[in-house]
Amino acid sequence: MSHLPAALARLDLPELNQHIGLSVREAERELENGPGPDRLLDATYANTHRFPPPEWAVETFVAAATGAGMTYTPYRGDTSVRELVSRNIREVLGLPSGDGVEPILTPGTQGALFVALASVLEPGDLVLLPDPDYLSTERMIRYLGAEVVRIPMVFSDGEDRPVLDPQALAEAAARGPRLMVFSHPNNPTGAVYQDSTLLQIAELAVEHDFWVLADQLYCRLVYDGRTFTHLANLPGMAERTITLLGPSKTESLSGYRLGVGLAPSSMVARMEDVQSCTALRAPSYAQHLLARWLADDQDYLRLRVVEYQALRDTTVERINASGVMRVRPSGGSSYVFPELLVDVSDREISLRLKRDAGVVVNPGYQFGLRGLRHLRLCFAQDEQEWSAALDRVLDVVARYPLR
Amino acid sequence: MSHLPAALARLDLPELNQHIGLSVREAERELENGPGPDRLLDATYANTHRFPPPEWAVETFVAAATGAGMTYTPYRGDTSVRELVSRNIREVLGLPSGDGVEPILTPGTQGALFVALASVLEPGDLVLLPDPDYLSTERMIRYLGAEVVRIPMVFSDGEDRPVLDPQALAEAAARGPRLMVFSHPNNPTGAVYQDSTLLQIAELAVEHDFWVLADQLYCRLVYDGRTFTHLANLPGMAERTITLLGPSKTESLSGYRLGVGLAPSSMVARMEDVQSCTALRAPSYAQHLLARWLADDQDYLRLRVVEYQALRDTTVERINASGVMRVRPSGGSSYVFPELLVDVSDREISLRLKRDAGVVVNPGYQFGLRGLRHLRLCFAQDEQEWSAALDRVLDVVARYPLR
Repeated sequence: MSHLPAALARLDLPELNQHIGLSVREAERELENGPGPDRLLDATYANTHRFPPPEWAVETFVAAATGAGMTYTPYRGDTSVRELVSRNIREVLGLPSGDGVEPILTPGTQGALFVALASVLEPGDLVLLPDPDYLSTERMIRYLGAEVVRIPMVFSDGEDRPVLDPQALAEAAARGPRLMVFSHPNNPTGAVYQDSTLLQIAELAVEHDFWVLADQLYCRLVYDGRTFTHLANLPGMAERTITLLGPSKTESLSGYRLGVGLAPSSMVARMEDVQSCTALRAPSYAQHLLARWLADDQDYLRLRVVEYQALRDTTVERINASGVMRVRPSGGSSYVFPELLVDVSDREISLRLKRDAGVVVNPGYQFGLRGLRHLRLCFAQDEQEWSAALDRVLDVVARYPLR
Repeated sequence: MSHLPAALARLDLPELNQHIGLSVREAERELENGPGPDRLLDATYANTHRFPPPEWAVETFVAAATGAGMTYTPYRGDTSVRELVSRNIREVLGLPSGDGVEPILTPGTQGALFVALASVLEPGDLVLLPDPDYLSTERMIRYLGAEVVRIPMVFSDGEDRPVLDPQALAEAAARGPRLMVFSHPNNPTGAVYQDSTLLQIAELAVEHDFWVLADQLYCRLVYDGRTFTHLANLPGMAERTITLLGPSKTESLSGYRLGVGLAPSSMVARMEDVQSCTALRAPSYAQHLLARWLADDQDYLRLRVVEYQALRDTTVERINASGVMRVRPSGGSSYVFPELLVDVSDREISLRLKRDAGVVVNPGYQFGLRGLRHLRLCFAQDEQEWSAALDRVLDVVARYPLR
């Protein structure tokens, strides 16, 4: 086999070998190829048959594909769709869109994440990232040759919302990072941060002059009637924040491959240049769904939040009653991130859960070292199937002795 | 504005400034933002209203989106779709698929091109590329930090198919390239190479141990009853060729954002790793169209080749009768690449054609230095509109004095 480019070797995160016994990529393939029954419940993502997209999705696509839509759009997306997206982001989500801040349409929010990172980072740059946080982010940062400094997420006694360790954050910011990236609500825990953390990020970004990439894919999916604070609305942040959004999760539109990045215009121009290489554009006909997203799905969203919150509540209750795992209620997203109280690694239990419970989960190592001995479960499943799957999961975990 | 990553600066091809007066990217934006009437004929791509996709496209998408398709597929694509694609590539196109060579589904053929280049190239590597050839290829290679050596395309007297200059090719191959990339049929000229060039590429690749990326996006769109030679079928080449295919052009499915890379399995695994960063996967529901591509479009293809060949013939005839441009008939693709016989740069005439003829064309600088003073025209247009547009184009060109 031919020479392996160094960037691809970094992408595998071989440095995690000492903690999990394989590179992250090797461990992922081990789970992907591991034995299991033919019929698996895949709890790594939402069941879009139980929770389908808004009704207008297919008809909007068909209208675009049969004549109303352009086959070729500017790389940043169809101009009239972008105008509507910009307006709806401002009016519905309350983000600063317009006045030199604008959206770029991307192939999935993952596509936005890649072009954003590639538009900012140089090999050798330092990037701040919470621990735990979305694994792909660390892999992309390493692919681009930059270095990651993880900032621990911590809960004070009695608080149901975490902070990022303020001292660790301040010290890392003083080291001159080019960028901070964080998912909010956090992936994998679903945590919504205390505002003190957002304010500290904003102050440090201005003081030390770095960019912040706020991956807010789940920002509409927030529970318990909480409000959500957009980082880009804090003082000095509109001009140094790239906000990632998209309809793949909350609105179940993942199969259409759509995402949105919101950033200052000069940054959008760069992101477009990268996208002109990696994929040209978001799928053209599907782009038209984004014109209705946010505007025509508010009843849909209300129902979804109620249904997901009920699933979250029963999931948390059953896990905490089991005695073999424990978990904090997620403030948003469709995930919980329970800690294993039994003596087994997340790598091993994930293989066992696939084989013996017929349930695929994300092992915690995929999210950073503070994810070790945790599992990420997506509870956006058919209620009856999920209840039975949780039975099987808890049974398999209970085979191991308590730590 | 913040620091511009060096990779993005390279992407603009600033080295072409001395030839066109701007970086390639600046010149592209100049044309994009240049004045023109509201109603433009865009001759940079095919008119998919005049030449729509196969009839089964929309119904296949709708079936997938409303229940038959998975929302989340493996990053390399849905397993059952990939099996059908592999079989059809082998049986319909005659490419070596199976036996350790397999397809990966990508977001457009552009997506396949990026993940293929990123899976092979290291900064500082040498890459051979014909002159002229597809501009994005050079931009991506520079983005990845590798160096491009252009190999001139030449026509011998009386030959209607070109070769790559055999001596230049042999000398460049002896310099130890990591990779050769070429589009075939060639973009922008539509040329189908003589077999002697393909045989020489294969011999040199084996002798000097480099990979070859054959961008065969237009390989079904070949005129005059010619057969097409797949590089991967030549001795020693199945194990060192990445073949790019896709339904975006010939089958007018560009709006669905689908492409295919065919490569040895170990290379597909790498390409999948890169894709897991850049875009996760090709749009899931749309992937199902690839199961019918090649299998269910053969009557469609026959009609298309006849109609496109007629458009090519009238386009070539009128250009060569004008006295102000001249062109060789393209052997394939939906492009012609006429040379300007008048005293004007391709950069300037493109701006004038947009403003005064209402026609958008690709200036030749976008394809390499041998493209200077040429234009790329996509003739896959409504016949009447195209005839009128050609009148306007030739009128505007004729305003300039002969060189």
